[in-house]
Amino acid sequence: MTVINDKFVVNTKGNTDIIDITNFVKSFVYNHNVQNATVLVYLAGSTASITHIEYEPGLLKDLPKCLDRIAPTDIEYDHDEMWHDGNGYAHIRASIIGNSTMIPLIDGALQLGTWQQIVLIDFDNKPRNRTVYIQMIC
Amino acid sequence: MTVINDKFVVNTKGNTDIIDITNFVKSFVYNHNVQNATVLVYLAGSTASITHIEYEPGLLKDLPKCLDRIAPTDIEYDHDEMWHDGNGYAHIRASIIGNSTMIPLIDGALQLGTWQQIVLIDFDNKPRNRTVYIQMIC
Amino acid sequence: MTVINDKFVVNTKGNTDIIDITNFVKSFVYNHNVQNATVLVYLAGSTASITHIEYEPGLLKDLPKCLDRIAPTDIEYDHDEMWHDGNGYAHIRASIIGNSTMIPLIDGALQLGTWQQIVLIDFDNKPRNRTVYIQMIC
Repeated sequence: MTVINDKFVVNTKGNTDIIDITNFVKSFVYNHNVQNATVLVYLAGSTASITHIEYEPGLLKDLPKCLDRIAPTDIEYDHDEMWHDGNGYAHIRASIIGNSTMIPLIDGALQLGTWQQIVLIDFDNKPRNRTVYIQMIC
Repeated sequence: MTVINDKFVVNTKGNTDIIDITNFVKSFVYNHNVQNATVLVYLAGSTASITHIEYEPGLLKDLPKCLDRIAPTDIEYDHDEMWHDGNGYAHIRASIIGNSTMIPLIDGALQLGTWQQIVLIDFDNKPRNRTVYIQMIC
Repeated sequence: MTVINDKFVVNTKGNTDIIDITNFVKSFVYNHNVQNATVLVYLAGSTASITHIEYEPGLLKDLPKCLDRIAPTDIEYDHDEMWHDGNGYAHIRASIIGNSTMIPLIDGALQLGTWQQIVLIDFDNKPRNRTVYIQMIC
């Protein structure tokens, strides 16, 4: 058994900033010359998510618009009344979408679709430095 | 350590077609005679999801209705203005629900609830052939 | 290779009851004195979820309010017309949020953010006893 840990830092603009981290993940994974593994991509925190999307300008507008219907930025949150940090919407979005993804590495290749990128979405209402953990089990 | 890889293809109708893949997953997993493992069920792509639901006719209508509130098929998407493929809603739904699930295999049994099925949901606006990857770490 | 299985039972009130299970998970994981592992936290069933949130009183009201917009408790569900158990909304919420999470254990520490708790959300419309499975791959 082997558990391989790696990590990298991403500087975000916050405010539902969507950042393509596919090449970071590929670079770290392929650097270890492993053939078969389950790869966990994980972000610690409660106001940002890891998920997949086709990274093109249209969807980078469409996804925030959709999330504005689910957890609008301009309604009142009990969280904000207590903590006055104005990011209640960010917590809700992160809880629904989740903060990790698993990708199978098979015969040396991460199994990603042609139009599928791995993204970090920072919902917080200010720029943040986010640490992304990569864990390979092989 | 062992990483066991398997896969199968599912033909879908698209348009939020929900397909019960529980028996496929069970068949592949149990065929390897492993007692304890973490089982990843994963779909490569950006317009389909893997999740769990009680597979009965009522919910097969209810879930699409709910998703029509979150990411309607009949509103304008920036994605569609640029690519004219009409599946912007499908990308958004897939990003929110996710494209994989993990299930523990314990003492030879996948730990699924009585009413819990593993499903592939194809949101794309046309029939597709989808490859589902199963990866056992044990 | 090692697969370590553990589990514990949580008594819930149902009705989108959100329960902090972070200390249960930490206790079980740290009890095994493992340094590096991928930790799966998993709930079998189709009307409850496992996710992350900052566990404070404001968000415990905000998240249910948000889910009432996505899958309201007071609209008609085809599921309920057939089964008359009144928990159609619960199935939909669980399918969207998911029933598991993965957390990396690195150098003996679960990588959780300062404000990030692991929670079980029971959407069902009655109290339930829920079994949470913890599986460590290391």
